[in-house]
Amino acid sequence: MILYDTRRSGNAWKVRLLAGFLGLPLRRRTLSIDRGDLRDPGFLQKFPFGQVPALELEDGRLLAESAASLQFLARDTPWWPTNPFAQAQALAWMSFEQERHMPPLAQLRLRLALHRDADPGEPRILSWSAQARHALALLERQLAGAGPSGWLITADHPSIADLALYPYTRFAPMGGISLDAYPATNAWVDRIRQWPGYQPLFPGQPDMDFATSEAELPA
Amino acid sequence: MILYDTRRSGNAWKVRLLAGFLGLPLRRRTLSIDRGDLRDPGFLQKFPFGQVPALELEDGRLLAESAASLQFLARDTPWWPTNPFAQAQALAWMSFEQERHMPPLAQLRLRLALHRDADPGEPRILSWSAQARHALALLERQLAGAGPSGWLITADHPSIADLALYPYTRFAPMGGISLDAYPATNAWVDRIRQWPGYQPLFPGQPDMDFATSEAELPA
Ligand SMILES: N[C@@H](CCC(=O)N[C@@H](CS)C(=O)NCC(=O)O)C(=O)O
Ligand SMILES: N[C@@H](CCC(=O)N[C@@H](CS)C(=O)NCC(=O)O)C(=O)O
Repeated sequence: MILYDTRRSGNAWKVRLLAGFLGLPLRRRTLSIDRGDLRDPGFLQKFPFGQVPALELEDGRLLAESAASLQFLARDTPWWPTNPFAQAQALAWMSFEQERHMPPLAQLRLRLALHRDADPGEPRILSWSAQARHALALLERQLAGAGPSGWLITADHPSIADLALYPYTRFAPMGGISLDAYPATNAWVDRIRQWPGYQPLFPGQPDMDFATSEAELPA
Repeated sequence: MILYDTRRSGNAWKVRLLAGFLGLPLRRRTLSIDRGDLRDPGFLQKFPFGQVPALELEDGRLLAESAASLQFLARDTPWWPTNPFAQAQALAWMSFEQERHMPPLAQLRLRLALHRDADPGEPRILSWSAQARHALALLERQLAGAGPSGWLITADHPSIADLALYPYTRFAPMGGISLDAYPATNAWVDRIRQWPGYQPLFPGQPDMDFATSEAELPA
């Protein structure tokens, strides 16, 4: 199975995390946004959405979108709950991530840490920051309710909802939002990082300080 | 089962459409954004996300988010495909809707048709308009490939992915985007409206011209 990704993609990181936890063999094909790889006609022919992550299965079937890829790879594993109501709750958190959590956190990371082309006091930064803090507060509320060893949806084992929420939560400090204000979230981040099979964003750099060094890498 | 909605909510309309097609009894509890119902502590206690749609099942279980509600209600019906890869493709289109399709189309409708507090030439309107047209072009490409009687994911029966994409596509003209430029999409809209059990946004007003009269209604 081939995973199309970019070095820094948080959405593709979700799929790499799951593959690591499940021990699934993934061949990474790492593209560059800066080089225009995602606008290449051959890529767009396969993946009209023009984004990563994107999966190419052994039989040639193609699948885009992080949430769909997580669900497809996790079915029949402990990462996808068996109870239909728990499945729906996982999908609810994954929709929330796509609509209200990832977009502002991704913009803050991009503007303030990667491209460094915005001022922290700009109206759009303040607006993304307020949206991101609200999303993190909702996540914190849920994780605090789950208790010190609980996960987003199920008590005993993390699910793909935890993985979907992880990368952009982890990036929050790059966008000027410390996770110290969200203690249950901070502890949950640590528990995910300690789960056997954890894959760091940058192979071989398990504890890199995203905020200071990631901008030096190609996109 | 209770559905919390608002009169004009396109996200809640998805759930009402599915309930109509399945013949599920739904008791609507119609809230008002203008009146602040979604900030009411009692509502937020039940539904911290503070949005509609929100479902309260007969046994008291609570579920937010349109995509999750669709999947929960459609499981074991022809609206949720049985093939795992088709399920993942449905989830991919539903993620796309949440991240790239609904947000710009909802903003255009809100600003240009409902609140009427923006000028069509404003930079943010132009930006949402470009995003919305790109999302509609991707939908059109998929529907054109599905053929004149096909659906987004499966050939023979619509799925919840069709329902998730329907409301904000249907609203596009309110935001200044005619569907005449998207012929396969236009035909698909008509086929959904003709499916037995179709529920119009406003009961009793099956063919209302959204663009001119909806702004007169309470939110
Ligand atoms: N909804 C998509 C979002 C994917 C996404 O935003 N990917 C970024 C990289 S993290 C990308 O491909 N950006 C390039 C572009 O949109 O042109 C998902 O969850 O997979
Ligand atoms: N991701 C949510 C979005 C729901 C949503 O945006 N609902 C709107 C009405 S269409 C709402 O409740 N707006 C009030 C608010 O956000 O304060 C879903 O798909 O259910």
